[in-house]
Amino acid sequence: MARIVMKFGGTSVADLDRIRNVADRVKREVEAGNEVAVVVSAMAGVTNQLVKWCQELSPLHDAREYDAVVATGEQVTTGLLAIALQTIGIDARSWQGWQVPITTDGAHGKARVEAIDGSLLIERMAQGQVPVVAGFQGVEPARNRITTLGRGGSDLSAVAIAAAVQADRCDIYTDVDGIYTTDPRIVPRARKLEKISYEEMLELASVGAKVLQTRSVELAMKQRVRVQVLSSFEDKPGSLVVDEDEIVEQPVVSGIAYSRDDAKVTLRRVPDRPGIAAAVFGALAAANVNVDMIVQNIGADGSTDMTFTVGKADLARARVTLERAQADLGHEAIIADPDVAKISVVGIGMRSHAGIANTMFKALAEKNINIQVISTSEIKVSVLVGVEYTELAVRALHTAYGLDGPG
Amino acid sequence: MARIVMKFGGTSVADLDRIRNVADRVKREVEAGNEVAVVVSAMAGVTNQLVKWCQELSPLHDAREYDAVVATGEQVTTGLLAIALQTIGIDARSWQGWQVPITTDGAHGKARVEAIDGSLLIERMAQGQVPVVAGFQGVEPARNRITTLGRGGSDLSAVAIAAAVQADRCDIYTDVDGIYTTDPRIVPRARKLEKISYEEMLELASVGAKVLQTRSVELAMKQRVRVQVLSSFEDKPGSLVVDEDEIVEQPVVSGIAYSRDDAKVTLRRVPDRPGIAAAVFGALAAANVNVDMIVQNIGADGSTDMTFTVGKADLARARVTLERAQADLGHEAIIADPDVAKISVVGIGMRSHAGIANTMFKALAEKNINIQVISTSEIKVSVLVGVEYTELAVRALHTAYGLDGPG
Repeated sequence: MARIVMKFGGTSVADLDRIRNVADRVKREVEAGNEVAVVVSAMAGVTNQLVKWCQELSPLHDAREYDAVVATGEQVTTGLLAIALQTIGIDARSWQGWQVPITTDGAHGKARVEAIDGSLLIERMAQGQVPVVAGFQGVEPARNRITTLGRGGSDLSAVAIAAAVQADRCDIYTDVDGIYTTDPRIVPRARKLEKISYEEMLELASVGAKVLQTRSVELAMKQRVRVQVLSSFEDKPGSLVVDEDEIVEQPVVSGIAYSRDDAKVTLRRVPDRPGIAAAVFGALAAANVNVDMIVQNIGADGSTDMTFTVGKADLARARVTLERAQADLGHEAIIADPDVAKISVVGIGMRSHAGIANTMFKALAEKNINIQVISTSEIKVSVLVGVEYTELAVRALHTAYGLDGPG
Repeated sequence: MARIVMKFGGTSVADLDRIRNVADRVKREVEAGNEVAVVVSAMAGVTNQLVKWCQELSPLHDAREYDAVVATGEQVTTGLLAIALQTIGIDARSWQGWQVPITTDGAHGKARVEAIDGSLLIERMAQGQVPVVAGFQGVEPARNRITTLGRGGSDLSAVAIAAAVQADRCDIYTDVDGIYTTDPRIVPRARKLEKISYEEMLELASVGAKVLQTRSVELAMKQRVRVQVLSSFEDKPGSLVVDEDEIVEQPVVSGIAYSRDDAKVTLRRVPDRPGIAAAVFGALAAANVNVDMIVQNIGADGSTDMTFTVGKADLARARVTLERAQADLGHEAIIADPDVAKISVVGIGMRSHAGIANTMFKALAEKNINIQVISTSEIKVSVLVGVEYTELAVRALHTAYGLDGPG
């Protein structure tokens, strides 16, 4: 017997048939002798409609009212799934964030979970009842108002609830059947990973694999919650995200990720003086622009070129900020290029293996792909290339690191 | 300065434009110097969709889960209207039933309001904030679960909140502009009533005028809440429902109501013995069939015919119940006729005026309309006629009692 939290996303509960399908899956886990709690998202499309209404009434709407509106999506799903479970003989009841309670801070629209009282849920599970908990929601205790955790927050709810009820596992059901060595749409021979460490998952999530929300992986790592990613439409084991100690055979490289969400910015001929980097990135931080990869060429004749990447959505803001600061920074020109892709090689084994980056550079050179920017971390090497090389680069690297499965 | 509760039904908040229109109306009341609280229904159509989902999952769904699902409709409207009000410079916030709190008993799906703590709402109104309260909802305190008050329950919420905050008036905005002497679709010369007593409104509501939910009128009468019915689309005064002492010039007859929701049932040749009525209506009550008008002809040769009306929706159940009890009751046959209409003449003045019923019988006779059943109460005379005579009868009576307005 195990205690399991099962989380189902919007596409898994998109209509009544799918909700019935979810109920069947929950029933199987219960009949296998497990204690089960379920966390659900809003039915696909519902949250978007609710957000749109708030936006149309006012782009600058009150985040507290936004939360009251959008939290209803999850509430509907909890009630419908509880009914579907009862209909097939499984004792179940719905729980809203304020009923559990899941208390958060008051940062409406992107609240942080502060505490979850798991006692009522544990008590009900011990009695054989399945709690169906609304994902994405919490309550801010001082004012007794509904909060939401930000988009993708249901993954976070599931992991936090798994920690609160000391679950043996948190199963995230989604529309893919696990975590792959890379995007199978680009590399048909991509392999599903049986296990992956929190650290690697975090790098993969943040560079675009989009299977699990980043904050939920961070929380799972911090609380040591074993997370499984699996398909709600197929009946096969998924991928386990666990502590690296649990992974006996660690490959050097676990996966290749890519992202087309960044833009490259180059400041031409910035004066090469101490404090210039602080001045550039201080101005961008003040404008709330996140900067990712940074390179600074060696200067000649007292000036240097400085290149970095920002999110595409922030590009216009970054440009305006730098233009305004030109007198101060003294750069000659701003060159922006949104047509870039970031390709990353991720693996815990890098810590103890040399030459990983070199394999990457060689593989890309062989395909005549120019590397524009390089950045590395302990378990990741990322390069920036022209966006048109995305698929070619990912395929070349997948082969170069021996990740290709049987064709 | 007055304290006003404004209630807007589903058609008044059916889309964002109408929600903005509601916000404008609320703003006008605020700018006139009033303290205002608003009660809203779900956007038109939303509740039906939510109910349908519950029904499709299981006709015998858990009423507690049904409540969790359908209560979301009102929650969405509260948040959207609060945003719309803030956008035009009116301080506002949404309140769900559990936040006020509006505590009810545990009869999920048709809960009764037990208490409303108006203190937070009064405090906010005093600070110039407009509380936007979800109609139809409450919370059952023992288990901390969401309850709903049954269809049309938002009127009840509005009246109960008006009582809790000691409002000077409860304005019910709807898609008609007041209470008429009869249905204007049948009698174009029907007149809008400036004032009507609770008692008359109760009779008119229960016989089919459908402007105000019956329970809300009962509560208004009990708590002496002045209720105004008015249009959310036009800018003119509506009809006031008040204590009869407030109505200076009381007409003998205030209105003509009709209902096509009843069916007539006749038991032929029931044994004419003591206790037979108790046996018939006891069996129907046990089967949860509500009986309205009852007549029993004088018996001959030891048997009698017994005629009564039941709701059309209950007719099949009534028939089965009576068939099963035939050995016991001893009737010869059951004759059911769904093609009937109940026409009612309502007026407080009847208490002190004779001949009211006779005017009705004469007017119907002149049109050759046969009266099948008659029943009377202190302020109402109702007759059952063939359904094809509905419009003719209503028009004849409207004229006979001098209710016709200028053509």
